Amino acid sequence: MQLAVGLAEIEDARRVIAGHVLRTPMLPAPRLSALAGTEVFVKYENLQVTNSFKERGARVKLAALTEAERKRGVIAMSAGNHAQAVAYHAALLGIAATIVMPVTTPFVKVASTRAYGACVLLDGETVSEAQARAEAEAKAQGLTWVHPYDDPFVIAGQGTIALEMLEEVPTLDTLVIPIGGGGLISGIATAAKAIKPAIEIVGVESMLYPSMWNAINGAQRVIGGATLAEGIAVKNVGSLTLPIIRSLVSDILLVDEEHIERAVNAYLTLQKAMAEGAGAAGLAAMLAEPRRFKGKRVGLVLCGGNIDPRILASIMIRELERDSRIVSFRLTIADRPGLLGQIATMLGRLGANILEVDHRRMFLDVPAKGARLDITVETRDAAHADEIFAAFEAEGFSPLRVDPGNTME
Amino acid sequence: MQLAVGLAEIEDARRVIAGHVLRTPMLPAPRLSALAGTEVFVKYENLQVTNSFKERGARVKLAALTEAERKRGVIAMSAGNHAQAVAYHAALLGIAATIVMPVTTPFVKVASTRAYGACVLLDGETVSEAQARAEAEAKAQGLTWVHPYDDPFVIAGQGTIALEMLEEVPTLDTLVIPIGGGGLISGIATAAKAIKPAIEIVGVESMLYPSMWNAINGAQRVIGGATLAEGIAVKNVGSLTLPIIRSLVSDILLVDEEHIERAVNAYLTLQKAMAEGAGAAGLAAMLAEPRRFKGKRVGLVLCGGNIDPRILASIMIRELERDSRIVSFRLTIADRPGLLGQIATMLGRLGANILEVDHRRMFLDVPAKGARLDITVETRDAAHADEIFAAFEAEGFSPLRVDPGNTME
Repeated sequence: MQLAVGLAEIEDARRVIAGHVLRTPMLPAPRLSALAGTEVFVKYENLQVTNSFKERGARVKLAALTEAERKRGVIAMSAGNHAQAVAYHAALLGIAATIVMPVTTPFVKVASTRAYGACVLLDGETVSEAQARAEAEAKAQGLTWVHPYDDPFVIAGQGTIALEMLEEVPTLDTLVIPIGGGGLISGIATAAKAIKPAIEIVGVESMLYPSMWNAINGAQRVIGGATLAEGIAVKNVGSLTLPIIRSLVSDILLVDEEHIERAVNAYLTLQKAMAEGAGAAGLAAMLAEPRRFKGKRVGLVLCGGNIDPRILASIMIRELERDSRIVSFRLTIADRPGLLGQIATMLGRLGANILEVDHRRMFLDVPAKGARLDITVETRDAAHADEIFAAFEAEGFSPLRVDPGNTME
Repeated sequence: MQLAVGLAEIEDARRVIAGHVLRTPMLPAPRLSALAGTEVFVKYENLQVTNSFKERGARVKLAALTEAERKRGVIAMSAGNHAQAVAYHAALLGIAATIVMPVTTPFVKVASTRAYGACVLLDGETVSEAQARAEAEAKAQGLTWVHPYDDPFVIAGQGTIALEMLEEVPTLDTLVIPIGGGGLISGIATAAKAIKPAIEIVGVESMLYPSMWNAINGAQRVIGGATLAEGIAVKNVGSLTLPIIRSLVSDILLVDEEHIERAVNAYLTLQKAMAEGAGAAGLAAMLAEPRRFKGKRVGLVLCGGNIDPRILASIMIRELERDSRIVSFRLTIADRPGLLGQIATMLGRLGANILEVDHRRMFLDVPAKGARLDITVETRDAAHADEIFAAFEAEGFSPLRVDPGNTME
């Protein structure tokens, strides 16, 4: 069967984007390698101006328009990275861009898309309602549709990533690539398999959005829910991408939220790079199934870095809690002056840093003359947390370990 | 006067590190450029394996040891990036490394230095006590001292950064470089001025640690205090670095904590890169004095990424507070059932996301039948926060805007 895109189109795309889209770094990641138990290289697409790979496909598509199409302008529906990529490159090319977003889109995303000069229409409670509005608008105004994935130019654009990756590290055995609509992996698989037929392409979807997995496996897994990887939370697979994936991708792995969260944190703490959930999905799959990749030289694409700072902060704090580096204790203490000072002194002696104290007298479940003290401390590690617990016990405070919760969640 | 290092030594250093220390990316940063009001390029030294530039100098120094010195081993005193750099490259070269750290060093730093195979000695309450122990140990065991900055090999190693920067962007007008002991800027200034005499080198110190500024200006500004940029919080300038800086650096700027914090946040949110305080000091100076750099093509070195995740999370949250994207209100309300539900409904209608509620009846400053409600919400922007405030006022809740504080600080 003839697939939508071939190596020649991807090589053309590369010439089109040269000088307009960043050739991002492709670097060895020794500490992720140690974590994943095999050799890992990372392509940092989060360093693009709009912080995702979407610029490649958008640029190729926009550059392919006729003079008449450019004059009429383009339209896209996206609440995320595609919106900013289209807005930014349309502005560079002097093409008017209209972006339709659901009304629920976070204001920062609306603002940054507007900042690139696009006309943003907020319409529809859901993505499909916004899609309907965008299609109506496209028809009414004669605008060219820039699809986020199901377009040969877009697929060819994303495929340029594989050319760059294999030029820098020709010895790669496996590429682990996130799948939303499938544009990224289709382009990458087409290029990589053409250059190096022995290379293995593994796809990754969020366990909550196994659309491509369903399509490939003829399955009916339930789709939906809140995922950290909203960039790949796609309900409909592409008609061009599905056949490419069927013929070139050897496997699709589904990753759960916990592994996505840990991968975001690993990129941040070990590689000092900010990844959104979808951008970290490839690493998440490696952390979830390390044996699957044992002994392979793996290439990952950190495909996007647009994560809400509040969510990122919360992920970082939760990881510290998981490692028992932030721990909360609930103590029942006699309500007498000086006791809090005594506890603080004890913690100081033990080398624990107090983060938060909540001292309450009025609870029915503590003795009338007693008080409850919730105290959150920073520890060196889990052993240190145990040591502190033991010290509280020895002092007769009946300590309980409690989930400190996260006020920012 | 003959300076300690010349271009030839830096070119030698480059050959020594090739294949052992990463050639890090040097990339245009359009969004930082927009923020700083001039064209900015960033050298991502935070992508080194131990996440700082210190590996360059450490590698060059270690590689220069004689066979006998290698056998006896090396010693360094550092609580930070130098410790990890020496430990990592000593291990790669099969040299035994001893690292002395003050007892107050965070456990994570001790653990990661040990993880590279170094022998870590915790001794001394302060850096100078640890230094004394390290010197005694060096003498007793015949270990070679690896100084963090005042060593010609170390300076030459750091200078390789400038060779790479100017190869990639020969048109740079100005380099803005953090100064701790001065090793980084000495190497960079030596290389850059030799290749391109017209280039301007600007140094940056923390306002709390103006050691080099004092030395150059014959001044006595007070030194000390808690700074986010602990990587450049150095009290003593180098005897080799001072003359280099005096002759090649045109200016030293002092940056305050607020600008350092904003620079860390800008790297994170705009470049998706994690910078420690010292690593962001160059950008901080540009944000503090934009007119100083107007019209210049500026090269920054993001020289380190080792920042405590808890501190980073807190910086991110504070920035959201500054932008009024996280806002706390204190309301005085009648203490009757259903009122909290009514307020929550109102906030939902206004599109504000509730993060935290603290509802208390027992305060002396509220009416006997009243209650105080502290409510923290996520807003779209400052205008949205004002709109919510007005709605509370209209409902008669006598709202006050309060600093939400940060429970993690």
